[in-house]
Amino acid sequence: MTPSDLLNKKAEVLIEALPYIQAFYGKTIVIKYGGAAMIDPDLKRQFAQDVVLMKYVGMHPVIVHGGGPQISGMMKRLGMEPKFVEGVRVTDPETMSIVEMVLAGTINKEIITLIHQMGGKGVGLTGKDGRLIKAKRLVEDKESINHVGEVDSVDPEILRTLDEGRFIPVISPIGADETGKTYNINADLVAGSLAAALSAEKLLILTDVPGILDEKGTLIPTLSKKKVEQLIQDGVVRGGMMPKVKAALSAVEEGVRKSHIIDGRVPHALLLEIFTDQGVGTEIVA
Amino acid sequence: MTPSDLLNKKAEVLIEALPYIQAFYGKTIVIKYGGAAMIDPDLKRQFAQDVVLMKYVGMHPVIVHGGGPQISGMMKRLGMEPKFVEGVRVTDPETMSIVEMVLAGTINKEIITLIHQMGGKGVGLTGKDGRLIKAKRLVEDKESINHVGEVDSVDPEILRTLDEGRFIPVISPIGADETGKTYNINADLVAGSLAAALSAEKLLILTDVPGILDEKGTLIPTLSKKKVEQLIQDGVVRGGMMPKVKAALSAVEEGVRKSHIIDGRVPHALLLEIFTDQGVGTEIVA
Amino acid sequence: MTPSDLLNKKAEVLIEALPYIQAFYGKTIVIKYGGAAMIDPDLKRQFAQDVVLMKYVGMHPVIVHGGGPQISGMMKRLGMEPKFVEGVRVTDPETMSIVEMVLAGTINKEIITLIHQMGGKGVGLTGKDGRLIKAKRLVEDKESINHVGEVDSVDPEILRTLDEGRFIPVISPIGADETGKTYNINADLVAGSLAAALSAEKLLILTDVPGILDEKGTLIPTLSKKKVEQLIQDGVVRGGMMPKVKAALSAVEEGVRKSHIIDGRVPHALLLEIFTDQGVGTEIVA
Amino acid sequence: MTPSDLLNKKAEVLIEALPYIQAFYGKTIVIKYGGAAMIDPDLKRQFAQDVVLMKYVGMHPVIVHGGGPQISGMMKRLGMEPKFVEGVRVTDPETMSIVEMVLAGTINKEIITLIHQMGGKGVGLTGKDGRLIKAKRLVEDKESINHVGEVDSVDPEILRTLDEGRFIPVISPIGADETGKTYNINADLVAGSLAAALSAEKLLILTDVPGILDEKGTLIPTLSKKKVEQLIQDGVVRGGMMPKVKAALSAVEEGVRKSHIIDGRVPHALLLEIFTDQGVGTEIVA
Amino acid sequence: MTPSDLLNKKAEVLIEALPYIQAFYGKTIVIKYGGAAMIDPDLKRQFAQDVVLMKYVGMHPVIVHGGGPQISGMMKRLGMEPKFVEGVRVTDPETMSIVEMVLAGTINKEIITLIHQMGGKGVGLTGKDGRLIKAKRLVEDKESINHVGEVDSVDPEILRTLDEGRFIPVISPIGADETGKTYNINADLVAGSLAAALSAEKLLILTDVPGILDEKGTLIPTLSKKKVEQLIQDGVVRGGMMPKVKAALSAVEEGVRKSHIIDGRVPHALLLEIFTDQGVGTEIVA
Amino acid sequence: MTPSDLLNKKAEVLIEALPYIQAFYGKTIVIKYGGAAMIDPDLKRQFAQDVVLMKYVGMHPVIVHGGGPQISGMMKRLGMEPKFVEGVRVTDPETMSIVEMVLAGTINKEIITLIHQMGGKGVGLTGKDGRLIKAKRLVEDKESINHVGEVDSVDPEILRTLDEGRFIPVISPIGADETGKTYNINADLVAGSLAAALSAEKLLILTDVPGILDEKGTLIPTLSKKKVEQLIQDGVVRGGMMPKVKAALSAVEEGVRKSHIIDGRVPHALLLEIFTDQGVGTEIVA
Repeated sequence: MTPSDLLNKKAEVLIEALPYIQAFYGKTIVIKYGGAAMIDPDLKRQFAQDVVLMKYVGMHPVIVHGGGPQISGMMKRLGMEPKFVEGVRVTDPETMSIVEMVLAGTINKEIITLIHQMGGKGVGLTGKDGRLIKAKRLVEDKESINHVGEVDSVDPEILRTLDEGRFIPVISPIGADETGKTYNINADLVAGSLAAALSAEKLLILTDVPGILDEKGTLIPTLSKKKVEQLIQDGVVRGGMMPKVKAALSAVEEGVRKSHIIDGRVPHALLLEIFTDQGVGTEIVA
Repeated sequence: MTPSDLLNKKAEVLIEALPYIQAFYGKTIVIKYGGAAMIDPDLKRQFAQDVVLMKYVGMHPVIVHGGGPQISGMMKRLGMEPKFVEGVRVTDPETMSIVEMVLAGTINKEIITLIHQMGGKGVGLTGKDGRLIKAKRLVEDKESINHVGEVDSVDPEILRTLDEGRFIPVISPIGADETGKTYNINADLVAGSLAAALSAEKLLILTDVPGILDEKGTLIPTLSKKKVEQLIQDGVVRGGMMPKVKAALSAVEEGVRKSHIIDGRVPHALLLEIFTDQGVGTEIVA
Repeated sequence: MTPSDLLNKKAEVLIEALPYIQAFYGKTIVIKYGGAAMIDPDLKRQFAQDVVLMKYVGMHPVIVHGGGPQISGMMKRLGMEPKFVEGVRVTDPETMSIVEMVLAGTINKEIITLIHQMGGKGVGLTGKDGRLIKAKRLVEDKESINHVGEVDSVDPEILRTLDEGRFIPVISPIGADETGKTYNINADLVAGSLAAALSAEKLLILTDVPGILDEKGTLIPTLSKKKVEQLIQDGVVRGGMMPKVKAALSAVEEGVRKSHIIDGRVPHALLLEIFTDQGVGTEIVA
Repeated sequence: MTPSDLLNKKAEVLIEALPYIQAFYGKTIVIKYGGAAMIDPDLKRQFAQDVVLMKYVGMHPVIVHGGGPQISGMMKRLGMEPKFVEGVRVTDPETMSIVEMVLAGTINKEIITLIHQMGGKGVGLTGKDGRLIKAKRLVEDKESINHVGEVDSVDPEILRTLDEGRFIPVISPIGADETGKTYNINADLVAGSLAAALSAEKLLILTDVPGILDEKGTLIPTLSKKKVEQLIQDGVVRGGMMPKVKAALSAVEEGVRKSHIIDGRVPHALLLEIFTDQGVGTEIVA
Repeated sequence: MTPSDLLNKKAEVLIEALPYIQAFYGKTIVIKYGGAAMIDPDLKRQFAQDVVLMKYVGMHPVIVHGGGPQISGMMKRLGMEPKFVEGVRVTDPETMSIVEMVLAGTINKEIITLIHQMGGKGVGLTGKDGRLIKAKRLVEDKESINHVGEVDSVDPEILRTLDEGRFIPVISPIGADETGKTYNINADLVAGSLAAALSAEKLLILTDVPGILDEKGTLIPTLSKKKVEQLIQDGVVRGGMMPKVKAALSAVEEGVRKSHIIDGRVPHALLLEIFTDQGVGTEIVA
Repeated sequence: MTPSDLLNKKAEVLIEALPYIQAFYGKTIVIKYGGAAMIDPDLKRQFAQDVVLMKYVGMHPVIVHGGGPQISGMMKRLGMEPKFVEGVRVTDPETMSIVEMVLAGTINKEIITLIHQMGGKGVGLTGKDGRLIKAKRLVEDKESINHVGEVDSVDPEILRTLDEGRFIPVISPIGADETGKTYNINADLVAGSLAAALSAEKLLILTDVPGILDEKGTLIPTLSKKKVEQLIQDGVVRGGMMPKVKAALSAVEEGVRKSHIIDGRVPHALLLEIFTDQGVGTEIVA
């Protein structure tokens, strides 16, 4: 291509983005950030670029991050043994303090730094900051997982306040009950609850798979509630994909327009999902 | 390229635009629209796309249009003979009413329609609407060009009001004095005056040439005041390019950061000027 | 009268206006401007004075103008033959461009100039500006009147924005559909639709007759829906009065408090209608 | 005159008022109310009409009233003897409580009632309400007139707050020092201080004379500072006219555009002063 | 106690107040001020301190005062004989003018002064100021008590306006009908109506008794509607306590959360009621 | 004391607080939180109560916390050896990540929880969140302490945004440069810089000593710049007290009204400092 052709190509791409920019102007997009996109240096940088661009073209991205591997890593460095029961981390008080320290003090701040480097203004929060997430105990009778919680209610005031100042909120999936007791909450479910509370336009859950696959390994582009239930019953959706699908489904049931389970290993997965028609994963509909 | 490569290419281009979006966020860009870009159907559509995109990514584009050929065309259809003295249209009262009718009723509305088709909200104004441009007579002693004026002062209130509502102003180069007498003003000079009054970040003047060329026909990328004066003296800058260079120069002298004379025949010339480093014409500096 | 008596007389008149100023404070008054009041120089000036005064004493006048004779005049100057079918102008694409040019470029600007001369700040709009009026085709099957439209919906945002800045909107009766196709709409019906969309206090339609006359030529001060239908059936209301009566009636049916068909040949007809009890024409009630 | 002529006459008067309405739009007019205009039932009603009209057409009238005769009257009813030293009321604590009671409880409320009857919303204040007027003792050494004060400073916040709500402030000329001690202040001087603190457009002082008269009894239309000093020296300005002239002069010296001493016995004196060129008394210039 | 113990004691008391400050933050508290608290110098000062403190910690206190004894006192000084029929003051026009003068000119201003001395900004109002209270005649057929009124409706706009400026409104229980005719209204009932119109959190009525006592003279801490009716029937609640109980009851019936009849003879009765659990009188519930 | 005496005592204490509440209303108080007050459970709870009370009575407390001991503790648990050179922690990249994790993830969140338990809404920030603190390297030439920084500039926008929403900011002393590189900054100096940037009324530095003591161990109530320099030269002020004194001094030099070094071991030290005249430590003046 001649330099002039290259320029024209560029202009065309920007113009192709216009209808998407118009469609999402002023809309809230909740993003569950995790997996490879949180580990690979290139993907990390690209994720931050995508989020900052979304903010500049008028969307309100809200990021919720996980951090299981890093938590387990730190526990091991401290001589503790991470344990899980049915996929849920056994969270006694000491584990809880490690969880909070790693999520709010390491991972959250790393994301803030990435956004900072791309020219954005991130503000890190846990569900305790600004009393954003009121949590309650998930399982009543197991002492050892005392600090595993679920979202009881969301007070979005702090998010609205930050929004006025053009800040990008980055949220660690931790909540507290009225007494201030801290809870470790599944990040997918936090993302789903926030999307519902904010009447978000979209919930985007980044994963390390192309989307939901059927029993033959083929990507399912769209999933209805009924189909999801079938897939769970058949054991096709299981393990770590369960809370993702549940969060995606409950979000759309509570008013979010669309939920998507997308492949975070694709460079600029967020931009591609937002700015193209084909999408890059599985869409969950109510 | 595979489809996936294409997608990645797209994302890259969007990301390349990010620093430019950040740099111009909230800034006013005054655009003098004219020439081929106002005639060729593709260029017209692309111009409107560029302007609407600029608005969506947070800039405040303000458009000033000309319309000499269309005015002359209508005069001929009405059996009148367009006359010019030293490049200035002889504007008696009857001509003035044709000028106003064609500028405000035909050309302005065509631009509004183009913006409308691209999803934007344009609002057409003359300098009389909202008392935007107070004009005065340009040449005192020639009765025949009684209605040729220049900008006396600008009251930008109507532009600020429209800005709050996310409207794109499109301005016909017509003003009035205190008695309501209407004046036909050179569109380049109106654009320059508005850019100065709005403390614009940029003034972009669309032309049908690659920019200012030196005596050998080579594009001059940057022009200082001194060099401009030299080029005028040498007769290199002359004719219709004179008011463009003057408007560009006086704008930067009154606080506009940069003026550019660019080639409106290049598709998406605005986007290329805004979103690339190389620029697409001649930059005038104070 | 002695000079002092004259002064007192003046003060009395101002004080008599007080209850009307109080009653209409902050209220929207939509005015269909046309006929003699748009031709006679004295009536024109008086109309502009009335509108500016209304604005200053706290009302929100919104003006919709017509322009049939001027359009036909320009068509003839351009060698075209104005045609009408059942009172509706045959509007092919070329006619449409003349209609738009004359309405938006000549008549609208003349009204803006009049308001300007009286110290007000008018802003001229068509239904395309700020996407004010979404139009649709009035008659589906007649190719020749392809561009005759009716109001599909009104987005009053641009009017509210202008209102904040104390501008007086002056509207040409033109709309566009989603594709940007332009339509010529009956000005009486545009005025009625805007009055309804703005929940106006009053719709005032200026005519060149004293009001609605009965078969004996006597002015009918008040007309109910039922009576209107009777008069139409009896052929008493017909021709150009039909859209006026329809607009007036539909406005009150959609929430406007009162519609009036008044005699625009009376000097200061607007002031007299607003600031006196007797009124100056026919009032249409729901 | 025929009824139609009468109507036209009315419209003309309203239109004549337009330039004055434009000139004073958004401007503050401080009015010292007193004398016959506060006693004669017709003048009282006309005064309230004028003030309410001024408010509706966009001015900000601020009223300061006096009340000497009523205070003396109440003192006599209570068996007390009003005393004056050099025109200043001897104000011991008991007298002060009568002054406050009559000004704030009787006269102020009567004015509020008049404004109420004309459809306005008055709010009565003393200088203690909202800490509007900080006062200090006028004469340090005379125990008997302990409570005669002068304006130390003005905090216009309460007036600005009321202005947002379209209320008309009516102020009794009473102030307090930091300890809460109450002072009786000359109403003319309070009006002058408020006009200065509010950067008023006009200070209007209502009197029971045609204005300032020269030694031959001829009305002096305009008075400069120098001329005022001469007239005082010559004993032409003296007695109760002294504080009026002083207040008028000091107001213009502190930034009020014009001060006027006008004849409150003329019906609608305020309207005539505001809405005509000739004026109705003496204008004091800096 | 050592000085350090004293300091700690102080801190503890402040901290004990915290939950009450939180509970009442941003809430409106209407206070009927009267009785001993309006006479005893210490109680007066303490009342003003309490009100100013309430304002500073984020509540919106609104004060309504009475003034029966002072009115009767002034009437006697003026040689008039105060008369009552069934506890209601016979209010002919002359009495009405005394009532207004004493309430608005003496008592109201004394409260403003007290608040001023404690560092607050009070603003005195009657129901006529800002058209706060529209009143109507209480008893239709008795000419002699022509000016005894009741609250017809409340327009709280002036209170909301003052609230923005952090002013404390102090209200004299006087209203006017549309014609401006002034009415003397029972202050307890005015307080109840204002509390209802403002959806107040609390109505506090200061009295000179410990609260409502049963037939044995024991304080009744809580009273329901039914119980109130019983006590009235049994003659236990009677005389001046009747309007207080009625105002308290009707306020809670119209949406006020709690009404209290408290002992104004207790120092800082307001603070104690607000900042402690036990309360200091009788609570009326719906 | 009888119960009634106790009540009165309580009211008196609240009233004593009134002048302090008035004096600090709307003022910013920056608090450096550290030492025993961050360890002892009672002192921690009392600190949070004090801060929440300050917020409710209209002040804007901004908390900056340290955390040296906790950082060293975590380093040891992870098998790392904390090292200091001249009192400054040797901060290589690995140490920096521990510092950030412990400050932002453990200590900050503990303070947020305490505030939460007292009914307040805290929001935890580092200097990277909202780009609050731009940092630069403190010592250029020592590789091993590469990440020890100092404040380069403060952008208080995020603090102003949170202030609108009535949130209490809690800040970890970490900053970043333009590249996103993270720096560990002395908390006292961060507090001093924020106090200056916010034009705070007060900077309060909590310590574990009664204040600055002279060579004989006597508390020095007030210290001037000159005296501070003398004490440093004499070696009386040294070690950890050095940055505190420097921060306190530079804050007052940059416009903070008063800096105080106070004894954080005293229960409710903040309240006592704010709400009493005697103060509880050493005041530093410019």
